Amino acid sequence: MKRTTRSILLFSIMAFSTLSAYSQQRPRELGIKIGVLPTGGLNAITDVSGVSVGHLTKIEGDQIRTGVTAIIPHQGNLFQQKVPAAIYVGNGFGKLAGSTQIQELGNMESPIILTNTLSVAAGITGVVQYTLQHDGNESVQSVNAVVGETNDGYLNDIRGQHISPEEVQKAIATATESNAEEGNIGAGTGTVCFGFKGGIGTSSRKLPESLGGFTVGVLVQTNFGGVLQINGVPVGQELEQYTFKNQLESADGSCMIIVATDAPVNERNLRRIAERAMLGLAKTGGIASNGSGDYVIAFSNHSDNWVPHQAKSLETSKNQHLRNDDMTALFLATIEATEEAIINSLWAAEDMKGKDGREIKALPKDKVLELMDKYQRLSQ
Amino acid sequence: MKRTTRSILLFSIMAFSTLSAYSQQRPRELGIKIGVLPTGGLNAITDVSGVSVGHLTKIEGDQIRTGVTAIIPHQGNLFQQKVPAAIYVGNGFGKLAGSTQIQELGNMESPIILTNTLSVAAGITGVVQYTLQHDGNESVQSVNAVVGETNDGYLNDIRGQHISPEEVQKAIATATESNAEEGNIGAGTGTVCFGFKGGIGTSSRKLPESLGGFTVGVLVQTNFGGVLQINGVPVGQELEQYTFKNQLESADGSCMIIVATDAPVNERNLRRIAERAMLGLAKTGGIASNGSGDYVIAFSNHSDNWVPHQAKSLETSKNQHLRNDDMTALFLATIEATEEAIINSLWAAEDMKGKDGREIKALPKDKVLELMDKYQRLSQ
Amino acid sequence: MKRTTRSILLFSIMAFSTLSAYSQQRPRELGIKIGVLPTGGLNAITDVSGVSVGHLTKIEGDQIRTGVTAIIPHQGNLFQQKVPAAIYVGNGFGKLAGSTQIQELGNMESPIILTNTLSVAAGITGVVQYTLQHDGNESVQSVNAVVGETNDGYLNDIRGQHISPEEVQKAIATATESNAEEGNIGAGTGTVCFGFKGGIGTSSRKLPESLGGFTVGVLVQTNFGGVLQINGVPVGQELEQYTFKNQLESADGSCMIIVATDAPVNERNLRRIAERAMLGLAKTGGIASNGSGDYVIAFSNHSDNWVPHQAKSLETSKNQHLRNDDMTALFLATIEATEEAIINSLWAAEDMKGKDGREIKALPKDKVLELMDKYQRLSQ
Amino acid sequence: MKRTTRSILLFSIMAFSTLSAYSQQRPRELGIKIGVLPTGGLNAITDVSGVSVGHLTKIEGDQIRTGVTAIIPHQGNLFQQKVPAAIYVGNGFGKLAGSTQIQELGNMESPIILTNTLSVAAGITGVVQYTLQHDGNESVQSVNAVVGETNDGYLNDIRGQHISPEEVQKAIATATESNAEEGNIGAGTGTVCFGFKGGIGTSSRKLPESLGGFTVGVLVQTNFGGVLQINGVPVGQELEQYTFKNQLESADGSCMIIVATDAPVNERNLRRIAERAMLGLAKTGGIASNGSGDYVIAFSNHSDNWVPHQAKSLETSKNQHLRNDDMTALFLATIEATEEAIINSLWAAEDMKGKDGREIKALPKDKVLELMDKYQRLSQ
Repeated sequence: MKRTTRSILLFSIMAFSTLSAYSQQRPRELGIKIGVLPTGGLNAITDVSGVSVGHLTKIEGDQIRTGVTAIIPHQGNLFQQKVPAAIYVGNGFGKLAGSTQIQELGNMESPIILTNTLSVAAGITGVVQYTLQHDGNESVQSVNAVVGETNDGYLNDIRGQHISPEEVQKAIATATESNAEEGNIGAGTGTVCFGFKGGIGTSSRKLPESLGGFTVGVLVQTNFGGVLQINGVPVGQELEQYTFKNQLESADGSCMIIVATDAPVNERNLRRIAERAMLGLAKTGGIASNGSGDYVIAFSNHSDNWVPHQAKSLETSKNQHLRNDDMTALFLATIEATEEAIINSLWAAEDMKGKDGREIKALPKDKVLELMDKYQRLSQ
Repeated sequence: MKRTTRSILLFSIMAFSTLSAYSQQRPRELGIKIGVLPTGGLNAITDVSGVSVGHLTKIEGDQIRTGVTAIIPHQGNLFQQKVPAAIYVGNGFGKLAGSTQIQELGNMESPIILTNTLSVAAGITGVVQYTLQHDGNESVQSVNAVVGETNDGYLNDIRGQHISPEEVQKAIATATESNAEEGNIGAGTGTVCFGFKGGIGTSSRKLPESLGGFTVGVLVQTNFGGVLQINGVPVGQELEQYTFKNQLESADGSCMIIVATDAPVNERNLRRIAERAMLGLAKTGGIASNGSGDYVIAFSNHSDNWVPHQAKSLETSKNQHLRNDDMTALFLATIEATEEAIINSLWAAEDMKGKDGREIKALPKDKVLELMDKYQRLSQ
Repeated sequence: MKRTTRSILLFSIMAFSTLSAYSQQRPRELGIKIGVLPTGGLNAITDVSGVSVGHLTKIEGDQIRTGVTAIIPHQGNLFQQKVPAAIYVGNGFGKLAGSTQIQELGNMESPIILTNTLSVAAGITGVVQYTLQHDGNESVQSVNAVVGETNDGYLNDIRGQHISPEEVQKAIATATESNAEEGNIGAGTGTVCFGFKGGIGTSSRKLPESLGGFTVGVLVQTNFGGVLQINGVPVGQELEQYTFKNQLESADGSCMIIVATDAPVNERNLRRIAERAMLGLAKTGGIASNGSGDYVIAFSNHSDNWVPHQAKSLETSKNQHLRNDDMTALFLATIEATEEAIINSLWAAEDMKGKDGREIKALPKDKVLELMDKYQRLSQ
Repeated sequence: MKRTTRSILLFSIMAFSTLSAYSQQRPRELGIKIGVLPTGGLNAITDVSGVSVGHLTKIEGDQIRTGVTAIIPHQGNLFQQKVPAAIYVGNGFGKLAGSTQIQELGNMESPIILTNTLSVAAGITGVVQYTLQHDGNESVQSVNAVVGETNDGYLNDIRGQHISPEEVQKAIATATESNAEEGNIGAGTGTVCFGFKGGIGTSSRKLPESLGGFTVGVLVQTNFGGVLQINGVPVGQELEQYTFKNQLESADGSCMIIVATDAPVNERNLRRIAERAMLGLAKTGGIASNGSGDYVIAFSNHSDNWVPHQAKSLETSKNQHLRNDDMTALFLATIEATEEAIINSLWAAEDMKGKDGREIKALPKDKVLELMDKYQRLSQ
């Protein structure tokens, strides 16, 4: 595409859209096309068939800006039919619950809950109650609740611990398989990313049939910093807001990253996939600062590989797994979907006033589009 | 010592003590001397100066048999003055909270709470409240609560989640620096070990001055199985109660092991110390079965090495640490104290009736003493 | 068995055997029965069908006391048909080659070579040459050679680097599926263990059919210290030779442990099996001292699970694996076989004179048998 | 800078330079300015005072295209005065020697050698000989040689194993503290990166005094793939050469990354620094494909923190270390220097013919400069 065409594209976007209008469009729709692989239908984690997502957003009075996000790997009884899973700790300044059992046993038996740092206990209790109360779990005495968090204490009265176990259950209950919501919702309600308003973002990649046809979906809760780069464009530098440059950009914070796939991948290769998500974060300019709690949880919900809670002794599992050699396409898909999910979270988030009168501004999307155009990174 | 002497020793123990009397004596006092290094004064984790321990025991009605144990590394403001710490996962079928941050940052900022599997959330909430309310922590917005657990669901109505955050705080509040209690108390109230009643146990080693004079203290919450061996004597086999032999001995369960030292040891070498605790568990016949959640948390409370929460930027820490070459004595001390703490927990625990009329018998101490004598393992 | 019977047993052993005679018997044959599970036919790693072992022993002049041991997982082309494998680092003061690729890919493609610390390079070259020259490997350009070592520099002129790649290949070439040799051979030629002459030891366990009927075999190269305990009997203390007591017992050194099984176990559970081998080492009194290089390599050679070097893209593997719940019996088997293999190595090793006129004495087997009898640990 | 200015800049670069001329300029000199932090004087790993680098390039006949690169942390006796060090495995399809001991003991005692996959043994032997022969090491019996590799078998007759231990020693011997060479030299002689000729690259960052004034230097051996991006510009896509698009770009391969710093950082924080290097690789479009051996070795040569091989027992180390809170600037410096070192390696490498008449073309620098200009990424 030639430059003149691009400028016209930008002009037409800006002329025919109000800010609020194109803020409801996603970056990809506006010409910010990250990566070389195609997306799934929703460009969301829910493109992985069976995965559902629910958000509980809690905005009350001047002080409360927080919430809960639930990601459910499949629609059966997850405790009775666990999924292969792995965790990678990008930077462990965080309070993720459930990691050691996933690493030891190679599977996950609960929905993934995301919330704020001081509400992890509420998250655990919500998941435990949900599991104990689930049909078929009457004799369950042990639940490995997986709860991640970031610290939304800049905008939210985090010390108030305003999330209840009931609200966690509500987030689970409202989850749908078509959810592709983003921005100031759920666990992203009060977060800050690269000094702008962060939030929930999601994206997916669908491999071509020649590479297996599998889908990789990513959901992120963005609350971290660094030197923002959007599809290679140095937005942070252009806006003079980046680590060590600008007070607002403290770099610290966290990023929870959930990677789902329908590819039949075992726990070791899921761990490798999880590691690649951090490469996607890097492409947005994230630096995994000292104070960041950057965790990746990856799971495969391929139904042939579900892990039954109870099975006949000495019955071998009949799982089929992709070989190491077939991982590279899934790695690339993970990197791309993570990068795009983070950018999507920034794009969807809107200005937010919160605790003690503080305000965090959204990414200035008009200015960013101008920059994208200047750097020849808007495509049709 | 000759055999005849030993038999007389046993006779005198049994003649002049009632069962209940010598059950209040600890194995070491009865001639079961584990290891080659001397113990500290209390033969307890509290021999490490500054460490305090508190137990909240909850025995209510027929169904509730559980509790909370709190171990506090030093008596200052632990959040503001953290301690170097490390975690080793012997077998990760468990729900330990707080592990990833300790591994990433090399320090611990909360008391260690032990409780039952489904009360980890209460443990976290209790620690968070304790920390937020502590003088000097008015602006704290993030707390890495360290909460370990084992599953006491055989004797306890664990699905009832009977521990409250207030009870967790109570366990912390009642902690003392002289606590050497053992048996059916705190987090050990409802546990089962080698098919006998388990519980809390503790032990310590004090290195000779030539090896540094440091103290290593261990506290365990025993709830696991295998083939019980006491100071080398095959007690499990003799009593015909061991893994795969006897239904009661399911092997599954867990062992939480806390290792404290006053030696100036950095986080890497604390990790190595933590690994050695599993060698002590092995000497009791523990096998870290599939279903076991065996975790070791090791910390050094040497006051020169406390890690301030806030410090001037770029000020280097002035810590002094022992070198790798001086670790071996601390390793041996850890192994011995862990082995003895586990045996102590079995010795102190008494018969317990609990949920659904179930009963777990204490280790038959008279029989065990006979066996110790038979195998020439009672000393004066 | 009553004590009198036992004394008669000991008497008969000693009366009807010369020392040299019963030193050729293995501990189990003499009544030292470690553990509760039955052994395989050879009580050796080669009980795992398909595993072969070869030793190259190099004793030359006064100064050279070293060698090579090769363990080959199966008798096919190992590079083209790799085996699931895992490594656990008990204490990483060592130079093991090949660990990171095994951890990443979950499989092993070379024989395992054991030798001395400064001959690891010769080991790698030997394995690379062996692999490149193997029929069917004409286009191979990358080989992950697995080479472990311990430091035999007390008895051997280790600085002379007396092992050649050709000798490594010779050890591989001489491997047989019936090899159960022990003592001062191969990589154990110059080693020292608990202050006595160490060496190669091996043992196995065969699970009863009710637990799957699988075999676990262990081979060790013993060169470490601690407080020697034989089947629970405090031999080190009785002989007054243990860490910090006696100069000869420096504790430092290393133990290489190889665990083989025919059970269909994936790489994650092989890692868990590998971890358990250190529990077996603990039961002999090993403490994994600072200077010790204690590594465990575990593999499964179940032929259905071989990993082809080349396969059709996107073809999923058809492996069948035991579930987590079935691991416990394999864990116990690993612990027992490791403990026995270490004791076997001490038992088979004989006095050795070496470098600079130094001599290391063998375990005083007559005295040990007396001690075993005294502590009621000899059975028929 | 306005676009017109930039075009003039490009024009002047192209007008007044022949291709070969500006190929001798580095990207930064041509206006490709990666990151926000300033470089050190040489923009090379040798900006870290005390670090020296040497290359042995072996180009012989039609088939041999390989070499050795040596990085020496300081100019004293490295075995007697070790440096704190850490390793991070980005993707472990590789044969790095020396990793487990560095992880266990937290230090490094040998030069770092880089070479080809099948010459790791020669690398180890070279380092062992160098160390044994070094003045003051007469009684050394154990050396943890650190040897990394990538597979240069596309251009090099790797099966011929053409590197000798003497050549390794020669690379060490020729090391200088001012070496900033790049391209087809040393261990980078035969490598391929993003389908173009790879090689050795190096870069550094010097933190402003307000952030401590420390230097971070990086050296890379590039032999990997993905979707090439240069300072955010989609070069791979524009040139239609990237993973899954173009056969030449197989993605597999490896990247060895060495990170040096003079900042007083302990082994745990060096590990965190090492992890960040992979984020820098990600920004070049690297994806850590299945077949890649991506390893990062990070060390601090701050002289106050050298680790003496021998010390008085129980003498605590007097090291001073930066606190966790001061790591973020070092993380950012590592990310930037790694990204730039990789791009530098591509820039400096030239067309190479090798084994079996194969040829790999250098990055088309004129075209790339045009692209950099088109995307507004050339600065003065």
